[in-house]
Amino acid sequence: MPSYNAPLKDMQFLLHDVLNIAASDVPGYADLDQGFTSAVLEEAGKLATDVLAPLNAVGDTEGCRLENGVVRTPTGFKAAFDQLREGGWTALDCDPEYGGQGLPYIMGTAVGEIFVSANMAFNMYQGLTHGAYSAIHVHGTVEQKAMYLPKMVSCEWTGTMNLTEPHCGTDLGLMRTKAEPQADGSYKITGQKIFISAGDHDMSSNVIHLVLAKAPGGGEGTKGISLFIVPKFLVNANGTPGARNAVSVGKIEEKMGIHGNATCVMNYDGATGWLLGDLHKGMRAMFTMMNEARLGVGLQGYAVAEAAYQNGLAYAKDRLQGRAVTGAENPQGPADPLIVHPDIRRSLMDQKSFVEGARALTFWAASLIDRSHKLNDEAAEGLVSLMIPVIKGFQTDKGFDAAVLAQQIWGGHGYIEEQGMSQFARDARIAMIYEGANGVQALDLVGRKLAQDGGKHVMAFFEMVKTEVKAHDGDDRMKGFADPLKTASKQLQQAGMFFMQNGMKNPNAALAGSYDFMHLMGHVCMGLMWTRMAKAAYAALDAGTGDKDFYNAKIATGRYYMARQLPACGMHLARIESGAEPVMALAAEAF
Amino acid sequence: MPSYNAPLKDMQFLLHDVLNIAASDVPGYADLDQGFTSAVLEEAGKLATDVLAPLNAVGDTEGCRLENGVVRTPTGFKAAFDQLREGGWTALDCDPEYGGQGLPYIMGTAVGEIFVSANMAFNMYQGLTHGAYSAIHVHGTVEQKAMYLPKMVSCEWTGTMNLTEPHCGTDLGLMRTKAEPQADGSYKITGQKIFISAGDHDMSSNVIHLVLAKAPGGGEGTKGISLFIVPKFLVNANGTPGARNAVSVGKIEEKMGIHGNATCVMNYDGATGWLLGDLHKGMRAMFTMMNEARLGVGLQGYAVAEAAYQNGLAYAKDRLQGRAVTGAENPQGPADPLIVHPDIRRSLMDQKSFVEGARALTFWAASLIDRSHKLNDEAAEGLVSLMIPVIKGFQTDKGFDAAVLAQQIWGGHGYIEEQGMSQFARDARIAMIYEGANGVQALDLVGRKLAQDGGKHVMAFFEMVKTEVKAHDGDDRMKGFADPLKTASKQLQQAGMFFMQNGMKNPNAALAGSYDFMHLMGHVCMGLMWTRMAKAAYAALDAGTGDKDFYNAKIATGRYYMARQLPACGMHLARIESGAEPVMALAAEAF
Repeated sequence: MPSYNAPLKDMQFLLHDVLNIAASDVPGYADLDQGFTSAVLEEAGKLATDVLAPLNAVGDTEGCRLENGVVRTPTGFKAAFDQLREGGWTALDCDPEYGGQGLPYIMGTAVGEIFVSANMAFNMYQGLTHGAYSAIHVHGTVEQKAMYLPKMVSCEWTGTMNLTEPHCGTDLGLMRTKAEPQADGSYKITGQKIFISAGDHDMSSNVIHLVLAKAPGGGEGTKGISLFIVPKFLVNANGTPGARNAVSVGKIEEKMGIHGNATCVMNYDGATGWLLGDLHKGMRAMFTMMNEARLGVGLQGYAVAEAAYQNGLAYAKDRLQGRAVTGAENPQGPADPLIVHPDIRRSLMDQKSFVEGARALTFWAASLIDRSHKLNDEAAEGLVSLMIPVIKGFQTDKGFDAAVLAQQIWGGHGYIEEQGMSQFARDARIAMIYEGANGVQALDLVGRKLAQDGGKHVMAFFEMVKTEVKAHDGDDRMKGFADPLKTASKQLQQAGMFFMQNGMKNPNAALAGSYDFMHLMGHVCMGLMWTRMAKAAYAALDAGTGDKDFYNAKIATGRYYMARQLPACGMHLARIESGAEPVMALAAEAF
Repeated sequence: MPSYNAPLKDMQFLLHDVLNIAASDVPGYADLDQGFTSAVLEEAGKLATDVLAPLNAVGDTEGCRLENGVVRTPTGFKAAFDQLREGGWTALDCDPEYGGQGLPYIMGTAVGEIFVSANMAFNMYQGLTHGAYSAIHVHGTVEQKAMYLPKMVSCEWTGTMNLTEPHCGTDLGLMRTKAEPQADGSYKITGQKIFISAGDHDMSSNVIHLVLAKAPGGGEGTKGISLFIVPKFLVNANGTPGARNAVSVGKIEEKMGIHGNATCVMNYDGATGWLLGDLHKGMRAMFTMMNEARLGVGLQGYAVAEAAYQNGLAYAKDRLQGRAVTGAENPQGPADPLIVHPDIRRSLMDQKSFVEGARALTFWAASLIDRSHKLNDEAAEGLVSLMIPVIKGFQTDKGFDAAVLAQQIWGGHGYIEEQGMSQFARDARIAMIYEGANGVQALDLVGRKLAQDGGKHVMAFFEMVKTEVKAHDGDDRMKGFADPLKTASKQLQQAGMFFMQNGMKNPNAALAGSYDFMHLMGHVCMGLMWTRMAKAAYAALDAGTGDKDFYNAKIATGRYYMARQLPACGMHLARIESGAEPVMALAAEAF
């Protein structure tokens, strides 16, 4: 059975050596000193190791059941959810006005990683609630906030997001769910929503559904869409759950993974809902939550990979099979451990260098979100909005690959469900699909984000990379970082140039290369992160502080990424520069 | 529910336009004219579409059950197996002396692809039997052949291969299963074998287990291993199944996929077995079957991808979502089909160009096996033995990727088990693991095959590619094939040179790049195949014969592969040339 231990040292390294958050001007960051963050993360790690991780396989095996209209979660989930609530973990980065602890978003991100690694399906109940909390927090009236937020901060009530319908996921303009205005200001919501994560369950006394629907007078397509609050139980004047609303679970989907989360078909049969935010501006209201939601999924990508890696590594150290080609390393034993073999090492280094790089990128993005929220820093907001499709698309693709690599180390035992390695791969797979499939992320990046605000943000990103490269000019130690980063960054710029020169004449020339661009940019981001991490590690070594072995390992891991992963950039550029022709040459009928 | 139609046109194109088998000097090939192969493949296609494909999801959902020591296969499997038998499909390329039809191996390969695409788990019962048949056919005594082969050719009895034990898979020298010689010339076999595909079931009246075990006096490691025939039911003098042997199923494994195949723990408790081949030469006996077994798994890689692709394509044509960026293509409908979007097209072309290239490589390898078997052609034997780890490793990696791509086209619906797209990904996953995990294939390629017979075979391969490139010198139409093939082939040679220059000093320098070399060589093989296919397609167009659209689509698909996939070669070379240092820099304890 897999186990999990939170990578506390790696997290502390990022927060303090690399991002130096306690010295930041972001309000609230000054309190985040080594001691405080260490205490928080250590406690989260204990809960993850002792309570959540052991339930991961239980959730996978048992799944959720629909019994007489009620969704039953797997054995132990409810008790664990109570522990999560009682420990205040659900309130970590929520507004103190509604019972939150008011910690910065970056702390929620670090703790979130720990919980996702331990049990992705379980953590989604809280994650979805946090998304719904944010939507109400930003768009709700004073009364709505007072009515829902305190209960959602504590996860006494949980939340959901209802977008997808059977015939439309990406193209929400096709939506059919209707909202009919009532005399009392409420709406009657009618329609079917599918793939609703945490749609219903037995761990909270109410479920607050946020539902996109079309109200009269909004016009065609996405313009007519509004966002509604539709509670499972209507809320009494005194704030307690009252009468059952006309919303029910049609069925629970059988999925490839995340079995511990109830993915529901939700039927709204004239359910009572209240407008959240402006009429006919529902898409905009959803989009304000998009950055955080997608960052959260990008986090899932590497967080599941981290857990898979830990267990792949354990097996590589434990399993005796074959001998090192350079001579026996365990001569007393019947064979050497797998980890002596170069190809196993390659696999482990692929996983490790990805996970640590992705964590750095995610924490950095979280710090940009804090900066954007708390300082109204528009540059930070623009940069993170550029970065989000990369983080979501690249990290979930690579996270899945990494989970598959970890599974592969286990050989045949990795294919057997009993060992738990298959679950990591199956769970990780969904992150490439939901919250905008990765192809849609690539489209968002190339079709929207590159040109946003006149291309200001992507130019700022290039400038930032250039500055980083320049800072290490003539520094021999950093050559293995700065040189490949410079090359990769130039390749990325060249790809962007290709889009500019060809995309105007033929938009397909840009879109045919969008997926490769997303990955190319992902590698450049990772290269930037590894350069910064190496710099911080060298600084610590120079200062003679801390654990020498740890910092040396950091540098070696980064060197691996630069040497072995950044060469993918040339491949992506070549594909992009082959343009639309090879991609679109076949007529649809010729397939 | 997914459907499947055999790609008859593509197969005929390979057999006749590209390989021109009917004109070959291989005995038996002269009979394989267009009409004959078409008739065989069409019949196989009907069985696949009508009988096997509809059972694919049934097998996945029901799985196999162990009831009172008896393995029950999913509903409908037994009837389908009877149809397979009655149609003579199990006897296709078997020796007529034992009831086989004596068709060349390449026909077995083509038919095998069709059955695997339709239902991989089901086809394994026959596939394993064929492997055991081959082992007995090559190594058995006259009496053994007479006793077992006729029943195995008809699949009245099926067969298995027993190698793996709980503590060893790759490193068979650690094996513990014992064989004690008995006075009557038989052996008592005692030990536990795991991951035994088709280990037991209710579709045949006997199961003939081939079991590796250690008999006294053979020495340490793999040297002491012999191969034994251990029937489930001892065979009476009149050839009928008699007393139950002391072999039983310990349990059926719960796996990530191929649920329709019973993967068994087999317990041998002093079971009666008979030596197959020479004492203490069991590994050699197994290895004579290895090429065919691994080619079969490489075939599974693209065959499952073909089925996934067909269903990804159907959805891309059917599902309406969004509008083409160049203007609505389905203006009467609410949206355009997915296939208008360049990124969906990229995904489909990735899948299509891989599957068709891999089929070409596999059919070519099958023709080399026929040539080796029937003409004792040592060059063909050497070449195919070089190619096998590439075909197994590269094609199963890419086949899995392709199945994941096809699943991705379905968005959230691809993650729901009901739609069947998840099954393709889960089934395809095993092919990367069994019959030698892909890392072991890379080791075999770089550690053994490259240097085999003084490097003769790899030099012959390079020469073959060079000749192909030269043949198109100055041919503008073929420039998009010959140029990238030349570049990629040079990169492959450069990688080989790197191994030669560095591998002697430090074997890790070669082994750290082995996986990348396997993929680099895979791309070069595919490039060679696409060049040959394009040549054949142009020849057909010039001759004005056949379906113009088909040949043009072939060329366009090949151009895509050359433009979009061959650039991976530069990336693999760069990784290889970074050597062992980045891979081995971290001490095992530093992970």
